[in-house]
Order: sequence, then C-alpha cells, then structure tokens
Amino acid sequence: MVSIPLQSSASAMSKKSSVQVGLQLRKDGRLALHKTFHIPLVLLFLKKIKSMSSFIDFGIAQKQYHGMNRITQLFNIKYPIIQGGMIWHSGWKLASAVSNNGGLGLIGSASMYPDILRENIQKCKQATDKPFGVNIALLYPNIEEIINIILEEGVKIVFTSAGNPKTYTEILKKEGIKVAHVVASAKFAVKCQDAGVDAVVAEGFEAGGHNGREETTTLCLIPNVRNHINIPLIAAGGIGLGSQMKAAMILGADGVQIGSRFAATVEASSHDNFKNKITELKEGDTQLTLKELAPVRLIKNKFYHDLENLYESGRNVEALKQTLGRARAKLGMFEGDLVEGELEIGQVSALIDEILPVEKVFEKLIREFNEAKVELTL
Amino acid sequence: MVSIPLQSSASAMSKKSSVQVGLQLRKDGRLALHKTFHIPLVLLFLKKIKSMSSFIDFGIAQKQYHGMNRITQLFNIKYPIIQGGMIWHSGWKLASAVSNNGGLGLIGSASMYPDILRENIQKCKQATDKPFGVNIALLYPNIEEIINIILEEGVKIVFTSAGNPKTYTEILKKEGIKVAHVVASAKFAVKCQDAGVDAVVAEGFEAGGHNGREETTTLCLIPNVRNHINIPLIAAGGIGLGSQMKAAMILGADGVQIGSRFAATVEASSHDNFKNKITELKEGDTQLTLKELAPVRLIKNKFYHDLENLYESGRNVEALKQTLGRARAKLGMFEGDLVEGELEIGQVSALIDEILPVEKVFEKLIREFNEAKVELTL
Repeated sequence: MVSIPLQSSASAMSKKSSVQVGLQLRKDGRLALHKTFHIPLVLLFLKKIKSMSSFIDFGIAQKQYHGMNRITQLFNIKYPIIQGGMIWHSGWKLASAVSNNGGLGLIGSASMYPDILRENIQKCKQATDKPFGVNIALLYPNIEEIINIILEEGVKIVFTSAGNPKTYTEILKKEGIKVAHVVASAKFAVKCQDAGVDAVVAEGFEAGGHNGREETTTLCLIPNVRNHINIPLIAAGGIGLGSQMKAAMILGADGVQIGSRFAATVEASSHDNFKNKITELKEGDTQLTLKELAPVRLIKNKFYHDLENLYESGRNVEALKQTLGRARAKLGMFEGDLVEGELEIGQVSALIDEILPVEKVFEKLIREFNEAKVELTL
Repeated sequence: MVSIPLQSSASAMSKKSSVQVGLQLRKDGRLALHKTFHIPLVLLFLKKIKSMSSFIDFGIAQKQYHGMNRITQLFNIKYPIIQGGMIWHSGWKLASAVSNNGGLGLIGSASMYPDILRENIQKCKQATDKPFGVNIALLYPNIEEIINIILEEGVKIVFTSAGNPKTYTEILKKEGIKVAHVVASAKFAVKCQDAGVDAVVAEGFEAGGHNGREETTTLCLIPNVRNHINIPLIAAGGIGLGSQMKAAMILGADGVQIGSRFAATVEASSHDNFKNKITELKEGDTQLTLKELAPVRLIKNKFYHDLENLYESGRNVEALKQTLGRARAKLGMFEGDLVEGELEIGQVSALIDEILPVEKVFEKLIREFNEAKVELTL
C-alpha cells in the first residue's frame, strides 16, 4: 500500500489557509482518499488524480495497466500491436513470432492458394498458443473457399479488407470469430460499425500496398474516424517507431497495425533481396500509383517507371493493365526481382535501416513508445 | 510552497521495510528532497520526478512551464504555435491576432505587392506589441525589394520557403533577424541547418498549397527530420486540433505551424465564400495536383477538374500553364470565386466545421492539447 498525503500552505492558496489531503493506493490498485480536507481543493485534487498515474505507478501498480486497453482485451493480447497481413510477407513464421511476442500476428491469405493458407494456419497453431488471425481480401475470387478453411481450422480472428464489410461479418461473428475491417475513410468506418465489426483498422495514405482513393494521411484520418465511431480503432499507415505508435494513440486510436516494419524482419516470408531493399530506402523512394485501377504504394523501380511512362501519353487503363500483367508482386516480393517486380512498401520504410528478428522489433517499439512524451503543458 | 511527503510500506517493497521520502516544491519552482530515506527507493523516486509534472503543477507551478520550450524561447512567445504565412489569408489582422493570443503570427508576403506588405507590417506593429514575422517565398521575382522592406521596417522574424536557404539566411541573421525555413524532406532540413537557420519547418503531404515532391506525410517526415537535425523543429501539415499538435510533438517537433485552421478564422483576410467552403469540406475533397509545375494541394472544384481533364490526353506542361493562367489563387481565395478560382487548403479542413475568432482557436487548441494523452504503459 502506498500512501500519499499532500500538505499544502502555498502562497497562491493562502486565502484558503492550510489544508490536508490524503490519498491511498490500495493493494488492489484502487485509490482511496482519507483525512479531513477543504472541498474546493479536493475537487481540484480529484481532477488531477487521472494525470497522476505516472507518479503513482511506482513499480507496484504498473503491471495493472497491461490488458486495460480495448484492443488488448478484444484480442486477448499483451500489446495493442497488430502485424499487417501483408501479401508475400505474412506467413505462419511471421504471424506466430508476433503473437509469441505479445502482439497479434496475422496470416496474409491474399497471396496464398487455399491449401497453402490451410498449411500456414496449421503451422501457426503449432508454433504459438497465443491468439493469431487471418487477413482476407474480400474481393478475391476464391473468397468462399478461404472462408470455409478459416471456419474449418477454427481461426478465431479475421481481418477483412478490400470489400463490403456487410457481406461476411455476420457469418463470421456467428461462429464466434472476432472481425476487424480495414478502411481508408471515416465514411467507410461508419459502414463497418453499422455492419457489426468488432474493430476498425483505419489506414492512411503513407501505408504500403493498396490504399484509399481519398489519399487521407494517418494524421488527418485517425481523429476524423475517432469522431465518427465508438468501437475500437486501430491506426495503420506510417507506423514503424514507438513514437509513431504513441502519436497514433494520442490521435484517438486504441492500437496500431504495423506492416513495413514487420516486412523487414527475419521471420517475414518475403525474399531477402526485397528485405534488404527496404532497409536502403530513403524518403521519396515510394509512390502511390495505379490510381486508375486500384491505388497502390510501390517502390520506384524500373517496373514503377514503366507504368509511369504510360501516363505521358494519357490515361490508358488497358495499357496499364497490360504492363502490370500478372504475378508482378510475387516476382518482386517473393522471388526477389527488384527490377521487374511490383514492390509494395510504406513511406515509413525510410525510417527502417535494418532487418531484425520480431523479438527485437517489439523491444524497440515498446522502449520507444514508453519514452515518447511531451513534457510541455500549455 | 507545496510539500509532498511520501510514506510507503507497500507489500512489494516489504523486504526493504518502511521508508520516508520527502519532496518539496519551492516557490521558485525547484524541487528539494528532505528527511531520511532508503537509497535504492530514492533513486527510483528520482527517476519518477520527471514524470510528476502533471501532479505537481497544481495551479501554482504551472506558469513556470511556459517558456521552457525551444520554440517559445527562440521567438519569445507563450505557445509554440506558429500561424502559417498563407497567401490571401495572412494579413496584419490575422498575424496580430495570433501574436496577441500568445502564438507567432506571420504576414504572408507572397500575395502582396511591396507597398501592401509595408502597410501590413506597419499595421501589425500598431496592433500588437508581441513578436510577429513575415513569410517570404524566395523564388518570387521581387524578392530583393521584399527583403529591403523587412529590414527597413525592423521585422525581427522571417520564415522563408520555396528556395535555397543559403541565399538570404546570413544577410538576415546579420541584422539580428531570426530565420526559419520551410522544407518537405530531411535532406533539405539538413541543408537548412548547414545554412545557419534558427529553426526548420517540416511540412507534410497533407498541407494545403505548395508542397514537396516526395509526398512524405507529417507522421513519417517529422521523426526522420528529427533524426537528421538538432536545431528547433516546427511540424506543419495536417495540424488543426490540439491532439494533432501533441502528436507532432511526440514525433519530435518542438512546435507546430498551423495553416488551414487559421484560414477559417474571422481575422483571415480571405473571402467569406472561401472560409465558408473550408467548413463544408469532407475527407477526399482536396488533392495534390500540378505536380509537373509545382505540386499544390487544391479543393476539387471546377478549376481543379479542368486541370485534371488535361491529364487524360497526356502530360502537357504548356496546356497546364495555359489553363492555370494568372491570378487564379486571388480569384478563388480573395475574390471568392469558388468555381473558377484556385482554392488552396490542407486535408485537415475535413476536421474544421466553423469559422472562429483567433482567440477561440487558441482556447480550443490548448484545451485539446492538454487533454490529449495515452494512459497506457507498455
């Protein structure tokens, strides 16, 4: 039990004379006031109690703050950190490593044939006893088969994207599955809430891969989504440092989804050529393109410039489709062809300069998150 | 004087037995420890003192926190809030109102003929005894004349943009003028530091008006710039709420430059039609365009779509220039033609729903800034 009596006879309060206020932190973590006190000052004092946590969590109460967040409670995880279910990166090794380190790992089904997805789910279950999930792109042709595998394998968490959240949310929730849906606007976040999802992922313009048409950045998107929905909110896009995670939560997010930082890990299933390329990127080395088809953020390699050159002679969707061709993302990210492949990564790659094991990424994120603060009071 | 003794016999510390630690906040704002205490616990206690500010600033010490920030010290202002020197918005009325409310008001010279600028500086000096500055776009043709007026009128703070910071920084600094330069990348921030500026403004993709080619968002830009320079850093782009201000400072900024939120004020010199339009904007209603000339974020009105239609038949810089014509920004923002005018505003406009006096903007920003926090410790 920690007891913090406060005795004050400050000059600024001299008209109110001396006063004694006692505050007790009980073993169960609750606060109790004791002794006699002056009412107006106590009201002031009570207003301050919320901001006292940094003072009171004197090593004793600190552990009690873990698990008190809506995202950690929803998914039964230690940290409100979700690893994006990225194509060609997010196999069972990455997902299980993230879950074993206290985050939520997601298997990215959009680059997997159904039998490969099943294998990844089964291996992930063997590699971790912690919660993990699967990300599914609702617009993919074999979506029914994917959903069936998820149900058969008893997956408990599904993140959906690129489609209407109404279509599968009810079906999945009836099976006891937690559902989150990825959006890029407050307008679609409201549709998600109406469809009954458990959480919304709001992803800003700076994110890698497929992206919204509005081009709203995470800094502008998160406060707007927060104003429009009251269910748990996960911020994505531009988050690779603990300070960025804290900034996103300052803006109203309950947790974060991190892609690029986890793509540059030992456990990611992508090609080493691509992982090494991520660590070399500088600001301005990625660009949102293919806006006529579906906007996607790519590294500016030869393939990107081939696409860009098509714009010189006007916007020809057929020509874009022809140049894009098929399996370009696999060629680049999985097979490591940095010249002709489609290389999807976020702007935050400019802040990533080494390939790390997932465990080290967590250590770094958590240290940076706890250190990030603004001392100034206005 | 506030005295905070701490008495502890907590179970988690039972092996160390009971201990008494005394802490005294003196009138001059310094902390003093008194009484006997147990060394390891005191070290733990001292580590916590930094995080105690929210507890101790019990109305008495609070004023002492003002002015302790590098930006408030540099410009001798109360709050680290700079009002962007926007064309057609930022006359003497807006600049002096911002300065009178404790921020740093900037007159936007880029939309003013030299004699108009001189008049604005003189009126601003009459309207406030607080520091204010002038923003100058270094690429403008009459730049020498502008610089001379600034020197003649004894302006003490200059924000430069759109040009090489080396050209005028030394000249201005020799006259005792504080100089900040606006950039959109860490690379140019380093050039600014090398040129000897007093502060750097790093502006993200979400900002209105002219913008960087790299399209780096504020969330990704600020930590990167912070890693590369050690002089004071001002974040700009996407900041209109106190939570966004705090997020920018969590990322490493010492202060913020705010444009759009101050454009929608009573004191802005822009047309009421345009101010009203700002309050109606939703997410996705602005877009970065004219990338072949100089990237600029505009409202998607008829003029914008006329420009966009030119891209259908390829990238023709001459056709763009012809459609752009002259004085389109004045037509839109100053004369209020929302159809044919060029309307520059940031993405954060989607979060602005009323025209306010500058005083109310400050009240709102400061309340939101102080309220924005993340309770979770990882």
